[in-house]
Amino acid sequence: MNLPEYPAIVNAHELIAPMIHRTPVLTSSAINEITGGELFFKCENFQKVGAFKFRGACNAVFSLTKEQAQKGVCTHSSGNHAAALALAARMRGIPAYIVMPENAPEIKKKAVAGYDAQITFCKPTLEARESTLAEVAAKTGATEIHPYNNVQVICGQGTAAKELIEDIGAFDIILSPIGGGGLLSGTSITAKYLNPGATVIAAEPEGADDAYRSFHAKKLIPSINPKTIADGLLTSVGEINFRIIQRKTDEIVTVSERGIVRAMRMVWERMKIIIEPSSAVPLAAILENKVDVKGKKVGIILSGGNVDLEKLPF
Amino acid sequence: MNLPEYPAIVNAHELIAPMIHRTPVLTSSAINEITGGELFFKCENFQKVGAFKFRGACNAVFSLTKEQAQKGVCTHSSGNHAAALALAARMRGIPAYIVMPENAPEIKKKAVAGYDAQITFCKPTLEARESTLAEVAAKTGATEIHPYNNVQVICGQGTAAKELIEDIGAFDIILSPIGGGGLLSGTSITAKYLNPGATVIAAEPEGADDAYRSFHAKKLIPSINPKTIADGLLTSVGEINFRIIQRKTDEIVTVSERGIVRAMRMVWERMKIIIEPSSAVPLAAILENKVDVKGKKVGIILSGGNVDLEKLPF
Repeated sequence: MNLPEYPAIVNAHELIAPMIHRTPVLTSSAINEITGGELFFKCENFQKVGAFKFRGACNAVFSLTKEQAQKGVCTHSSGNHAAALALAARMRGIPAYIVMPENAPEIKKKAVAGYDAQITFCKPTLEARESTLAEVAAKTGATEIHPYNNVQVICGQGTAAKELIEDIGAFDIILSPIGGGGLLSGTSITAKYLNPGATVIAAEPEGADDAYRSFHAKKLIPSINPKTIADGLLTSVGEINFRIIQRKTDEIVTVSERGIVRAMRMVWERMKIIIEPSSAVPLAAILENKVDVKGKKVGIILSGGNVDLEKLPF
Repeated sequence: MNLPEYPAIVNAHELIAPMIHRTPVLTSSAINEITGGELFFKCENFQKVGAFKFRGACNAVFSLTKEQAQKGVCTHSSGNHAAALALAARMRGIPAYIVMPENAPEIKKKAVAGYDAQITFCKPTLEARESTLAEVAAKTGATEIHPYNNVQVICGQGTAAKELIEDIGAFDIILSPIGGGGLLSGTSITAKYLNPGATVIAAEPEGADDAYRSFHAKKLIPSINPKTIADGLLTSVGEINFRIIQRKTDEIVTVSERGIVRAMRMVWERMKIIIEPSSAVPLAAILENKVDVKGKKVGIILSGGNVDLEKLPF
């Protein structure tokens, strides 16, 4: 299979531009003073459904042929991808079938239901999720849209870095968090084309460091029992994502849980914006001196802002 | 004393423009759907020191003559005005003397000290604050800058509405919270000049409703034991502010504590930005049907974003 290249991201951007927010890029003189770098934050927490995930889901949904689209789309997810896929499907006027574990938080069930998706609940195991999804797909003929191991999704996610570089210019360093690798693989394709002088670095929680280990072992090593407050980064890296990351990402570093909470709090207090823990992982890498930004111009993708206000870590 | 008019706000804006942030105006399709109006939020939570207060303090400090300025400025405050005055003074390179009650939160003491202000602590009574301030002023010759009952401060605060109307155009309704009345009086002057067709409405917590009662009694009635989560709105309306409000504000409405928390949470969850309870009061008035915005274009000033993350109401 051919890996996607930058022109596919340009196409994705043309396709989804009318549907997505071109999110703002914010700076903070206080955080620049603390870190010694010139940091530019791409605010995907302001994206529709509150996360960059809408870009990829939107590109996947609107890339379907009319025949495919009529039968709808499906996925298993309890997170931002489920909401993103549901909204994208509603915007195209097609059904979305979402398989969710029965113990998913009420707030997430409501969000997905609010976008008119048809939810099928299953036992909270990966096996049950996959078998239930297979049943749903067989019954409906819906196209499965994987949350990250999917070329259209990757190309959609790569549009965030495209906007960031278009709006601000070239960077010395571009930072993204890594979970399944959808955002990082898309970001790396864009960065290496538009801004080849930039070093592309991913930051990952120590407690879910499969990407870090895989990257350095040069082979995919899935996580076993990952544990981190950055709940968007619990998943293991996808196969297509990993092939792109091996070619186009320069480094992966890990950060502590304490560092994630500290960075998240710093963004809340200094920038007055709400980001979820996953979004704070790149800034945590800077604050823990895993990435040296002194005197450097740095682009950071804030991946999302969906947090349960009743379960905050401070 | 002549009350200030719009040209003084234009002058203030020219003076302070290089020092302040021209803050963004955000919208939320979700909140528009809920309220039935077209709402535009002027984000003074992104202003320097995290609140609109910096505009007024900055105008007051930079309006001083060289002779006055050399001796510095002083005020008693434990809130956003103290930080704003300290930063404005530092930017002009002059001393700021801040009288704070000894029981002020550590976080506020640190913020003010962080801007190099000289803090004098006193007993936590209005009497002690005023007598200590008089001593400091007598000893230093510093000019007292009142947080709201001050023409330069009022003119500085009026620049937020000026930017809002310049950026978005005319509104049907313009909403601001009311505490001491600095923001509302400045906003009303600007609105009645630039956008005379707009209805200017202030929203106030039921538990600190001196402006509401004064407005309807047509005379100043100070608050007695005000109590509200909107800690920026505990103060009683100033005399100059009230005279302007009587002439240029169309209506004052009150909202419940529960409504404030609900509105604050809605902004956090839907817009992913951090606002303090005082900022949520105008949206609370809409959600509690005190202001009918259906089909209307509405400008709302979000006054600030300084909250203690360890003491959230949700």
